[in-house]
Amino acid sequence: MNLYAATVPVFTKLLTNVDHWLDKSVAHAQAKKFDPQVLLGMRLAPDQWPLLRQITAACDWAKFCTSKMAGKEPPVHPDTEKTIDEVRARLKTVLAYLATFTPDDFLGCEDRPCTHAWMQGKSVRAGDYLDHVALPNLHFHLTTAYAILRHNGVDLGKDDYLGEIPFRP
Amino acid sequence: MNLYAATVPVFTKLLTNVDHWLDKSVAHAQAKKFDPQVLLGMRLAPDQWPLLRQITAACDWAKFCTSKMAGKEPPVHPDTEKTIDEVRARLKTVLAYLATFTPDDFLGCEDRPCTHAWMQGKSVRAGDYLDHVALPNLHFHLTTAYAILRHNGVDLGKDDYLGEIPFRP
Repeated sequence: MNLYAATVPVFTKLLTNVDHWLDKSVAHAQAKKFDPQVLLGMRLAPDQWPLLRQITAACDWAKFCTSKMAGKEPPVHPDTEKTIDEVRARLKTVLAYLATFTPDDFLGCEDRPCTHAWMQGKSVRAGDYLDHVALPNLHFHLTTAYAILRHNGVDLGKDDYLGEIPFRP
Repeated sequence: MNLYAATVPVFTKLLTNVDHWLDKSVAHAQAKKFDPQVLLGMRLAPDQWPLLRQITAACDWAKFCTSKMAGKEPPVHPDTEKTIDEVRARLKTVLAYLATFTPDDFLGCEDRPCTHAWMQGKSVRAGDYLDHVALPNLHFHLTTAYAILRHNGVDLGKDDYLGEIPFRP
């Protein structure tokens, strides 16, 4: 077992799915004759991040998870996006970053300490970081983005969330 | 590495968190003087499952994931819950089921074929089942439940979703 399989291909698929959600969002806005950019500012509660920030947070968790588990310095992405095209560019940037990893980068990484500034000097074993921190955060922000779009009438279903399932041959 | 760590303790924590969300939901309803049961019927879109079904679906994914990966027959839970107390009992039942597993149950399980009726005769390797099917579904339903509660004013934050993080000693 190598944790590459649990991270890079999964995150690549999930972030690629978001690009398809944006296609459907733009189509929905055009059909209803409203500016698709409006969706980026929608949120489910006043003290919750809007769609745009949910998507860029998901991008960050995919980036943090792979870089920290593999013991690399994550690139800085300064959250300057304002438009759907810029959000798509951010997705593309992170997808290109994910593509730089190989299974060798994750060899024996399970016990590597992973940390963030908000952990205040503490750290988590890479295996626990994946299971208890990065994956829950990634799915949390992805599902919240999905929920915001569903709440606003975009025609998405569970398959759009899961993407292709790697069935056995 | 053993996939017990990626499943049983994580799911146990996440489903225990949901019980705390229900505490906060009941407190919110009492403060606002409405029947807390009303929350169980709330949904973010008319063609989306309500809170009650999101929680029982999360219960099912925790159950399916552990049983199928460990090569055991999952118990049947017939979705008859209607009240918050019954939803709490369902959580308790699944938490008790999770407690029956040991790391030995997951030894060498990575390539075990996992399937559901909806896969129409196909199956997925247990490792892929965890990463591409069960975990995304579990977090999808948990986050949707959380989002429904946030949308309805319940005082929840990200820490209530993640629960305790297993920092290194």
